[in-house]
Amino acid sequence: MDIPNRVIGRLSAYRRHLRRWLSEGREQVYSHDLATQEGITPAQVRRDLMTIGYTGSPARGYDVHGLLTRIGELLDPRPDEGIILIGAGRLGRAMLDYLAAQHPEYPVRAAIDNDPELVGRVIHGCRCHADGDLEDIIRDEQVTIGIVAVPADSAQDVADRLVRAGIRGLLNFAPVRLRVPAGVYTQDLDIAVSLEKVAFLARGQAKAQETHE
Amino acid sequence: MDIPNRVIGRLSAYRRHLRRWLSEGREQVYSHDLATQEGITPAQVRRDLMTIGYTGSPARGYDVHGLLTRIGELLDPRPDEGIILIGAGRLGRAMLDYLAAQHPEYPVRAAIDNDPELVGRVIHGCRCHADGDLEDIIRDEQVTIGIVAVPADSAQDVADRLVRAGIRGLLNFAPVRLRVPAGVYTQDLDIAVSLEKVAFLARGQAKAQETHE
Repeated sequence: MDIPNRVIGRLSAYRRHLRRWLSEGREQVYSHDLATQEGITPAQVRRDLMTIGYTGSPARGYDVHGLLTRIGELLDPRPDEGIILIGAGRLGRAMLDYLAAQHPEYPVRAAIDNDPELVGRVIHGCRCHADGDLEDIIRDEQVTIGIVAVPADSAQDVADRLVRAGIRGLLNFAPVRLRVPAGVYTQDLDIAVSLEKVAFLARGQAKAQETHE
Repeated sequence: MDIPNRVIGRLSAYRRHLRRWLSEGREQVYSHDLATQEGITPAQVRRDLMTIGYTGSPARGYDVHGLLTRIGELLDPRPDEGIILIGAGRLGRAMLDYLAAQHPEYPVRAAIDNDPELVGRVIHGCRCHADGDLEDIIRDEQVTIGIVAVPADSAQDVADRLVRAGIRGLLNFAPVRLRVPAGVYTQDLDIAVSLEKVAFLARGQAKAQETHE
């Protein structure tokens, strides 16, 4: 099914609201309920849900349970979808901790690091392997997603190796834009760039406010 | 200066390439050098740099050092710009560790948590305070940026308090879309949504490839 990138992000967000409403005993929602939560138009919500083949009724809205099931069919990870983490430094270890605690549905099959102190250790339930084991682990352990948490200067090499080994989805924490071939998807989570943006915009807003006072 | 959000993100990225080139002894770059690194058009690079009032010459390109200085004037944090972190759980502590090690130019003045076990402790060089101290710290400690690392169900309350206390820039790790008034800027770093997108798209690509084989 061909679902645009942005729609996937919104489905993920809709699901959170639906789960909360379900836990509160609510059985039906309207497109404007979801729209209000996300700051978008009800028409956008209806288009998104039509994209995944789900329709409501004008009178009763959408069935919360049914819609959750439909979104789950699309977004829930499959049993054979594992993660490999490259780079078990600060951010990498924090991700292992976070995923084990908050997202056990995404099992991290292995961590990889070239620090001999880390190799062989089990970190937040995940074993750390030597750099040279990367390709074997991907082949043997049902890994479909790579998390790149290495320094900027080695991130592209790591991405190239992951792609050659068959990985088609990368979550990238390295402060660099990865070049990947068509058919491979990479999502950047760049903390430093985000922080610079927030700092700049907060400053600009503060100045604009002073000017108006 | 009115610089669009997207341009800020690209300036941040340009700066990384420029720093690397400077360290390699390079003095001039062309718009196409930056464009190639970022996968955009040279015309886009030239528009971005014109936005910040920086022009090159067609023959010699841009001066690496001068351009770095100009971007730094815009993006470098000011001495009076501190961060307050709300939520010293897994992600919050990882952020303290990461910022102290990688971005000392953004000092975290205080962490806030309502866990009595954490209050009073110094975590990666940053003292953790009780929830009720939030407003006093923002007033007294030159804080302009808030990092929200609390669970989803308390994130909006935290954001409301930060905004009332005068914060104009929020970096949000909570899996919820924060509603903030005009003039306040919020940037989401949603790890779970990013992971769901990567997993879905990696799966779709894999299927599409199988179909073609």
